[in-house]
Amino acid sequence: MAKHDKAKRGIPSKDDFNAWYPAIVEIADLVDKRYPIKGMDVWKPYGWKAMTLIDALTRAEMERTEHEEYNFPLLVPEDLLDKENRLVSLLKKAREEGVDPSELRMDEEDSGFKKEVYWVKHAGENELDVPMFLRPTSETPMYTMFPLWVRSHGDLPLKTYQIVNTFRYETKQTRSFIRVREIHFFEAHTAHEDQAGADAQIAEDAQIVQNLLHDLCFPAIVSKRPIWDTFPGAWYSTAVDVVMPNGRTLQVATYHHYKDQWAKAFDLKYEDVNGQTQFCHQTTFGMSERMLGAVVGMHGDDAGLIFPPKVAPIQIVLMPVAAHLSHEVIPRIQAMAQELKAAGFRVKVDDRDLRPGAKHYDWEIKGVPLRLELGPRDIESGKFVLSLRTGGKEFHESSGLVDVISDALTRTEEELRARAAVHMSNFVQPFPGIEMSDAGWTLKGEIADGKVYELAFDGNDSDAEVLEKATGLAFLGDCIEPFAEPRACAITGKMTTRRQHLARMY
Amino acid sequence: MAKHDKAKRGIPSKDDFNAWYPAIVEIADLVDKRYPIKGMDVWKPYGWKAMTLIDALTRAEMERTEHEEYNFPLLVPEDLLDKENRLVSLLKKAREEGVDPSELRMDEEDSGFKKEVYWVKHAGENELDVPMFLRPTSETPMYTMFPLWVRSHGDLPLKTYQIVNTFRYETKQTRSFIRVREIHFFEAHTAHEDQAGADAQIAEDAQIVQNLLHDLCFPAIVSKRPIWDTFPGAWYSTAVDVVMPNGRTLQVATYHHYKDQWAKAFDLKYEDVNGQTQFCHQTTFGMSERMLGAVVGMHGDDAGLIFPPKVAPIQIVLMPVAAHLSHEVIPRIQAMAQELKAAGFRVKVDDRDLRPGAKHYDWEIKGVPLRLELGPRDIESGKFVLSLRTGGKEFHESSGLVDVISDALTRTEEELRARAAVHMSNFVQPFPGIEMSDAGWTLKGEIADGKVYELAFDGNDSDAEVLEKATGLAFLGDCIEPFAEPRACAITGKMTTRRQHLARMY
Repeated sequence: MAKHDKAKRGIPSKDDFNAWYPAIVEIADLVDKRYPIKGMDVWKPYGWKAMTLIDALTRAEMERTEHEEYNFPLLVPEDLLDKENRLVSLLKKAREEGVDPSELRMDEEDSGFKKEVYWVKHAGENELDVPMFLRPTSETPMYTMFPLWVRSHGDLPLKTYQIVNTFRYETKQTRSFIRVREIHFFEAHTAHEDQAGADAQIAEDAQIVQNLLHDLCFPAIVSKRPIWDTFPGAWYSTAVDVVMPNGRTLQVATYHHYKDQWAKAFDLKYEDVNGQTQFCHQTTFGMSERMLGAVVGMHGDDAGLIFPPKVAPIQIVLMPVAAHLSHEVIPRIQAMAQELKAAGFRVKVDDRDLRPGAKHYDWEIKGVPLRLELGPRDIESGKFVLSLRTGGKEFHESSGLVDVISDALTRTEEELRARAAVHMSNFVQPFPGIEMSDAGWTLKGEIADGKVYELAFDGNDSDAEVLEKATGLAFLGDCIEPFAEPRACAITGKMTTRRQHLARMY
Repeated sequence: MAKHDKAKRGIPSKDDFNAWYPAIVEIADLVDKRYPIKGMDVWKPYGWKAMTLIDALTRAEMERTEHEEYNFPLLVPEDLLDKENRLVSLLKKAREEGVDPSELRMDEEDSGFKKEVYWVKHAGENELDVPMFLRPTSETPMYTMFPLWVRSHGDLPLKTYQIVNTFRYETKQTRSFIRVREIHFFEAHTAHEDQAGADAQIAEDAQIVQNLLHDLCFPAIVSKRPIWDTFPGAWYSTAVDVVMPNGRTLQVATYHHYKDQWAKAFDLKYEDVNGQTQFCHQTTFGMSERMLGAVVGMHGDDAGLIFPPKVAPIQIVLMPVAAHLSHEVIPRIQAMAQELKAAGFRVKVDDRDLRPGAKHYDWEIKGVPLRLELGPRDIESGKFVLSLRTGGKEFHESSGLVDVISDALTRTEEELRARAAVHMSNFVQPFPGIEMSDAGWTLKGEIADGKVYELAFDGNDSDAEVLEKATGLAFLGDCIEPFAEPRACAITGKMTTRRQHLARMY
């Protein structure tokens, strides 16, 4: 029956992740991809609910850390970009004067940006004097306003965020949640008195991400991105990569330390305690619906999704069994549902007139963590049946319902975290090494498809290029957890604790 | 001191509403209008919080009535409009065949729509094959998808909603919340088996609006709009108008009965219980940030905003008094704040080092319903001081804090409702009457500026035009609460219970 149903639903095996993923997001009714614009899906209620639950976790973290929620306009007049272009010039000048080389990478970014946005040049029957674009991210609109709000050190730190739709004109293949053209986006932007303030913010962002990953039940690799992969205008960028089941890494969060680079471009100054004018130091922190993509990818299995309890739109489905044999079944189920709702759980009673097997498979596909069944015999024995989506069928006393459910959800989280840790350790392999011979640089072992390679690396940009070319993979950057003991750099042989990863990125 | 502070803040008298309103939305820090696109304000945290609290009330009503939340793409390909144009043709045909004349008004709507939207014709460096526009509302994108989801009567009713940003290229003068170009928008769209199902939905929508108005503490005039003011494609439109302090009416909600007109255009069909194919009957229900504009306009006074407790971002501000005289003050205030937070109130402790007068005026401007003060002497006497934003200073026993606050918030709501009712009765005047003489139609009395006129009216379209011309006002439509006893129609003299209003609309 199981096989029959699965075939009917058309869920591919998760071993074929590139087929499983696009199928399951529609079969589980998270999105509908038939909207007539590529890369712009319709969010169905079940998917939207999961996304808003992730947003709620984010908002709770923002409240804990005293960020305030704003909402900026979607449209950005093109002439505001002049200030960003000034930033480019500024960084060019920094290079000419021989200051911090991390400031040099803006050169070719100037025109690149405009290639990725949607343009509004017409309104009604008019051509606009100043073209506008749909925000791909909000540095420009926000930093246009910040100088109006910041006057003195008393106005700092300014800790803002918004959760909005952003747009990128993707030319690559689109994938639900992972690469889309209308993006459900979270962005925090902060301004501080000095570099130390921004440093502390970066540390806070790192902790926020760890808290979210804990609730979503999967680990990630956190790396300071290489210079060439740093966000334009950033001093440095830290990125959070999840290893998806096909071995490709998915960047689910980034936080950027801007130092005072953007502040200089946007003239974001304040008067310090000594009455001196200073430039602010800034940070940004971004996440998106990719977090939901990671939830789908990391936890699902051949039978469908598995939602981590904290973001499960439905945490427990209650199913009456053989209700026609006893008039007590339905009221008892309703009472249990009420008790659980009152305790704050997200609950659904499935009293549809379908055979139990069909219902089971529906809720398996949708990844509901717990299924509670109650029939006449259970009522007699004072028990109920609890099935965990992660596996296992249990009999519990009807008294103490809330504790049983709470415990089972905690065990579900622990099981998901344990599975994700195993998953990660299977994917992250030691780098086989590389050697110079007459034929040039040659790998000492095979680079398998769908693996992430860990290595000690302390070389320069061209050394990195050698490794990227030889493996066909890309550097994620300096892992924020370095090796405990120094190891030999894969290229130079120098001893280093710098831990890096080579991976195929989404 | 009061006068001095108010002058400093620059709040105009509310008697000059057209000056007061645009000033207060910025002085109370709801929005910042300095974003460089006219009609696109930046939502500041205080304003955004109020808006999301209104949204939360709406979402609770949607959940109560079993609507599900979706999120549709912002961009709409122009070619989808073909179906809307088909609707126009359909209605033309209906006229030619002499059916229901309410279906005739689509004629000139065809091209009108395109004059009000922002166009995306370019992405990156490419010109798009099919231009897209930013949704002004979502009939077209939604009804493109609905036929994919509705197959049989088991799929009905389909009750959807979303809360999103929409766009209108306004050419009229913009005003925060009231007339903007990026609109924070709520829209519910439903599909039913038959007209009775849609009728019931319209009744449900009417009740939802009344529930919201109750929480927001002001009344409204609910009218079935005249034919010429019906939403394109609707069978009939019901609109909810709030009388603002300048006497102009602000449409804050509308619900439309579409019958099967849109369903025919979008081919939205289902198989009924008898296996017959039928067209769905549809409704829509829209609200927007105008609801916040009405809250601001209805309840504020010369000292600033007054938030109805249900949507007040801060419900109680707690202020320590003379804390330097007793180390007990701050911990006691913190404990009271904790107790109130735990009870679900939105609370802020203001322990800034400012003189009390300055703090009072800040919170008056922001419209916080309650201000609680506690000093050393209050601690000794076991009391605290409570000031209501609607007026009055009270001394209460420190025990029973939660009940005292809960009661004071309820009294605030009642006071606001009472004031709004008085406000409404001041604005709505009996129509002075009109008579035919040699000089043509002449008003029997003066039409005062800033009033709404109530009248019995049972005339035809040209009778209505006479009245609109003579008064310079517009018909709101048939009030859903007709007169209890028949009265003479203002033009024809025929007895009728049809109650109508003439007003200047925003």
